[in-house]
This record gives sequence, structure tokens and C-alpha cells, in this order.
Amino acid sequence: MSYVDGLVPAKIAVLGAGSWGTTFAKILGDAAQGTERKIILWGRRAEVVEQINDHHRNPRYLSSTELPLNITASTDISAVLKDAELVIVAVPAQTLREQLRGWAPHLAKDAVVVSLMKGLELHTDQRMSQVIMEELGLTPNRVVVVSGPNLAMEIARQEPTASVVACADEETAGWVAAVCTPPYFRPYTNADVVGVEIGGILKNVIALCVGICEGRKMGDNTKASVITRGLAETTRLALALGGKAETLSGLAGLGDLVATCSSSLSRNHTAGRMLGEGLTLDEVNNRMTQTAEGIKSARAVKDLGAKVGVEMPLTNAVVAVLEGKLSVDDLGPLLLARELKSEGD
Amino acid sequence: MSYVDGLVPAKIAVLGAGSWGTTFAKILGDAAQGTERKIILWGRRAEVVEQINDHHRNPRYLSSTELPLNITASTDISAVLKDAELVIVAVPAQTLREQLRGWAPHLAKDAVVVSLMKGLELHTDQRMSQVIMEELGLTPNRVVVVSGPNLAMEIARQEPTASVVACADEETAGWVAAVCTPPYFRPYTNADVVGVEIGGILKNVIALCVGICEGRKMGDNTKASVITRGLAETTRLALALGGKAETLSGLAGLGDLVATCSSSLSRNHTAGRMLGEGLTLDEVNNRMTQTAEGIKSARAVKDLGAKVGVEMPLTNAVVAVLEGKLSVDDLGPLLLARELKSEGD
Repeated sequence: MSYVDGLVPAKIAVLGAGSWGTTFAKILGDAAQGTERKIILWGRRAEVVEQINDHHRNPRYLSSTELPLNITASTDISAVLKDAELVIVAVPAQTLREQLRGWAPHLAKDAVVVSLMKGLELHTDQRMSQVIMEELGLTPNRVVVVSGPNLAMEIARQEPTASVVACADEETAGWVAAVCTPPYFRPYTNADVVGVEIGGILKNVIALCVGICEGRKMGDNTKASVITRGLAETTRLALALGGKAETLSGLAGLGDLVATCSSSLSRNHTAGRMLGEGLTLDEVNNRMTQTAEGIKSARAVKDLGAKVGVEMPLTNAVVAVLEGKLSVDDLGPLLLARELKSEGD
Repeated sequence: MSYVDGLVPAKIAVLGAGSWGTTFAKILGDAAQGTERKIILWGRRAEVVEQINDHHRNPRYLSSTELPLNITASTDISAVLKDAELVIVAVPAQTLREQLRGWAPHLAKDAVVVSLMKGLELHTDQRMSQVIMEELGLTPNRVVVVSGPNLAMEIARQEPTASVVACADEETAGWVAAVCTPPYFRPYTNADVVGVEIGGILKNVIALCVGICEGRKMGDNTKASVITRGLAETTRLALALGGKAETLSGLAGLGDLVATCSSSLSRNHTAGRMLGEGLTLDEVNNRMTQTAEGIKSARAVKDLGAKVGVEMPLTNAVVAVLEGKLSVDDLGPLLLARELKSEGD
């Protein structure tokens, strides 16, 4: 029973019990109401797994949300992956490759793998779908990415949300979309995996930049200009990698960027604000309970831009701040400088 | 001395002493420091004009900002327009045509006219630059529009801001840009007048929609989706009228939309929020000290969309709310409904 024969999956594994993994398990669980479908969440910490099984809550990341009863949890990866036709992956981007190597032997034959991650691997500059294909030996028609204006906390509260489910094979994307459509979550399919992933990766870097502006008490005019130039930078990179401009104008590009840069729920936005207020990078990292992915990926994004010859002034400025080579006071004037052309001249 | 012979204007008239007109006069005045250039602001109310002349303040709209000393004010339109090579117009959109008829005889020969207005004329569905050309008998190379992420209050506080100065003749645009470049305001030129104007008009309608969502306590995921679909709707309309997609991805499209939808300083956003909280349109209008242009123009935007055959689901929904045909409770579900396609399918 899999996408190959058109049947919906009977068992879905979700690997990673952080806030987005847990929230996505809830989406799947709510969408499976009235069916026999089982959702199994893999977590690293025994105490989190226990709380989910006994009290239907994730006390660490989503304490006020009651999870559907069709979600169970386990620390045993082989039990979680056994016969799972659909596998959702939501672990920190920089740990993905190593974790996949441990998981590969347990993956069910013909399983489809979905990435919820929004990072770029350091040193290889690979997107998460590329790491998945490489480590699990999967063809593009079995690797899917989900991305959009999807602040986990709002979805956990069942606030209406739209998203994008992308796969080179839109039939696979549709098969995945069909099992993540509770009334409050509306997925749209798209075949542009590159565009969707680049949108998700860059928005974290731009959210850091907007956060820094906010921390320096700059106004909405400036922040809107940074968002505008940030999306232009994102689109240039996506196009250079074979993505489509329309994708970046859509929910996984503009939509995700605007949601992230507007919300105090975004970790990257918050981390940027703390940097702007004068905290050091170490102080910021110490205060965050979960990874701000933009901090980890920014350097890889800069390297990727250089590799494909795309001008990335905002990313380069953020990396310079993160590496202590540019002060947050000097970032502001740079953002509106003539050198950062925006109207195509 | 005019754009024709390449010399900067010695006298600039600003018609309309509301918050944007007054703020733009300040931009021009600050940019003219160290020159002989004079800025003369025309206002309808004698008490406002008097305060500007005697105390360099506009008590009604910009009370905490001290205006540069090279700005004077008058209620006498013929004195204001006499020998003014550059004329900036910032009056309520629906009153423009009538006012222009009174002003036309006083306009200096070869004067360039700049519209700061972001509305569409009811019944004719004309953009402000079209009304100006028609009533003043000007050719396109003498009509300029300025638009961007330009919340007046932030500019009055001299927060760094970028903007777009558009004219069919980019030389004229450059001539105008050269006199509105104080250190805190950075204009970029563009030849796409249609795109710049449509961006400014639609963002008010979309800001109403986002405001309504906020008033109904919907989250950032939903608001980001509405902004995404709103920009797609704006771009479709601009393209149908001969505008360029790049313009709408730039400061006068995306930038202005994001600034307006993020800020509590935006009148349209605020008006939408009050509607969303359950106030009637009359109650909202009574509470606003200045026009929320989106409320006035929405119907004209809907008519224009229908005329050129462009699908405008967000605009149509906002008009239905304004005309009492759709409740704010019914708007929410409609915004994420499948009928509002966004990822190009």
C-alpha cells in the first residue's frame, strides 16, 4: 500500500519531536480522524515520548496542545519506520545526514520521504532533499518538501493556514497532500522543489536581518524594503539553481517570508532582534531553546551564492554580522545604500 | 528653468497639507538645504497655513515635527503655483478632478506635476496620473508618480526610507528624484507608471482585508497568505493594464504592501481592523481623521478588474464587506477557500 498503487498510507512515521514535527504529526492525526491510519512520532528523549503516549502532550515544545489519540511515540527508530509508507523528517538541518545513515537500513521499501526542514548543509551547500536522496538512495519522485507561511504555534491552535507540498512528481505531492488536509490546513501542490526549498532557507536568513533592524529600532519602511530586497535575492538564487520565479512569489516564498518576518513566534526573527539589541551570538544561542536555523545555514547560503555567481548582499551582510566582522550599527546604513540596487538598475 | 533645460527647480509647490503632503514638503525642504530653492505648501485651512508660517508645524497632521524654514504655506493657489516648475499633488483622490479644474489656469508653462495619491477615481476608473493628464492637458513626460513603503510618520521622524519615482520619461523622473533626496529618503527611478500606481492603489484594498483578518483575531499565517494572494491579484491587474511584473515585486508593489499591512500607522489597515472588530462602515468613517483611501477606491478597483477581465477575488470580497453584502465572519473562511487559487493551479 503506497503511492505506487494509489492507496493512502496506513502508517506514517514522523521523525523528530520538536515543535514543527509534533505539530505536523497533529495535522496528520487530525486528518486521519475516522480512518485506521496510525501516526508514529520518533523522539530522541524518553521523557518526551512517554508524555506523548501517556498524556498526549509534548511538554517541551507544545505544552498547551492536546494531541490526537491516533498519535503514539517511540524512541525505537526501527519500530517507528517498520512498514511506514510515508516518512516525515523534521530534525535540525545540520544533523540530518548523520541521522539518515542510522535510519537508512530501517526504511520501508517504496517509502516516500517528506522534508519539513529549512536549512542548507554546511560545507556541501546541499538542500535537505538532496541530502535525503543521496543518503537514502531515493529518486526525486519519492522525495517531497513541505513549506509555507506555517508558524507551528498558530497551526497547533488550529488557525487557518495554507502551505505548499512540492515534489518533482506532482502525483506523489498529491498523495502526500491528501493525508495532511484537516479543516485548518490547506496544502497546494507544486513541482518546483528547488524554488520551495530555497524560499524556506533564505527566509530564515532574511528574518535574521529584519530582526536585527527591529532590534536597532528601525521602522516599518526600512523593514519592508529589506523584505522586498530579500525576496529579490531569494528569487535570483532560486532561478540560478533551476527554480521558478512564480514559486517565490507564492506561499513558500513571499508568504513564508512575510509570516516569519511579522511574527514574534519566529525563532530566526527573535534571534535577529536579540542581536540587534546588542547581545552577542553566544548569548543569543544560549537563550534559544530551539535552533534558529538561519544562524546555522547563513554561511552555507553565502557559499552557495558565490558558487553559482549570484549577488547576495543581504546574506553576505548577515554572515558578516554573525561572524563578528560587521557591527549591527553598521548593518542599517548598508541596507538602504545605493549599492543594494532594487529597482532593477 | 525646468527639466527641459536640465536645471533644478527654484520653486516647488506642494498642493495639499495633509500628513503625506506636509511630510513630502519636509523631504523637499531638507533636500534643499544650502540652496535658494523655495517650497510652498498650499492648504485649504487658514489656521493650518498660519501655524506652518508662524511656528513651522502642521498641528493637525504632523504636530510633533518641526518643518524646515524654507517651507512656507498659503491658501492662495495662484500665488502658490506662480512660476512653480515642479508641482506636487496630495489631495484626496476623489476630489482631484474638481480641484484640478480650479488650478489649471494657474499652472506654470512647462511645469512637471507629481502625484503622491494612491486612489482610483470612481465611475471613470482612472488612475491619478490619467486624471492629471486629462484635466491639465499634459503629456506623459510631464507627469510623475511617487510611491513606495512610505509611512509618512516614519519619514517625518527621518527614519531611513526608500521609494520609487516613476515617469514614462525616466529623465523627468531623475529630475524629480534629484530634489527629493535628503539623507533619510532614497528614491529609485522607474519608467513603469502603471505598475507603480496600481501597486499603490491595490495595497490599500489589501490592507483593509488584512486589517479585517486582524480584527477577527486571525494569525500571521493567514495574514501572510492574504498578502501573497493580494500581490498576485495586484500583479495580474497591472499586467493587464500594461504594467510590469518586476515593478510589483519591487518597493512600490511588495514593499509598500508589506509596510502598510505591518504598520499600525496605516489608515487602511486600521480601518480594516475596526471593521473586523465589528464596527460599521459609518462608525469607522467617523473615527478616522483622514481618508482611508482603500474604502473610497475599492469599488472602482472592482469595476476596473471587471472591465479588463481580471479575476479579483480579494478586492471583490472587500467590496462585498464594505457594501454590507458579506459579513466579516464570512470573509475569513473565503480567504483560504480552494476557489482562491494561489499556486498557479
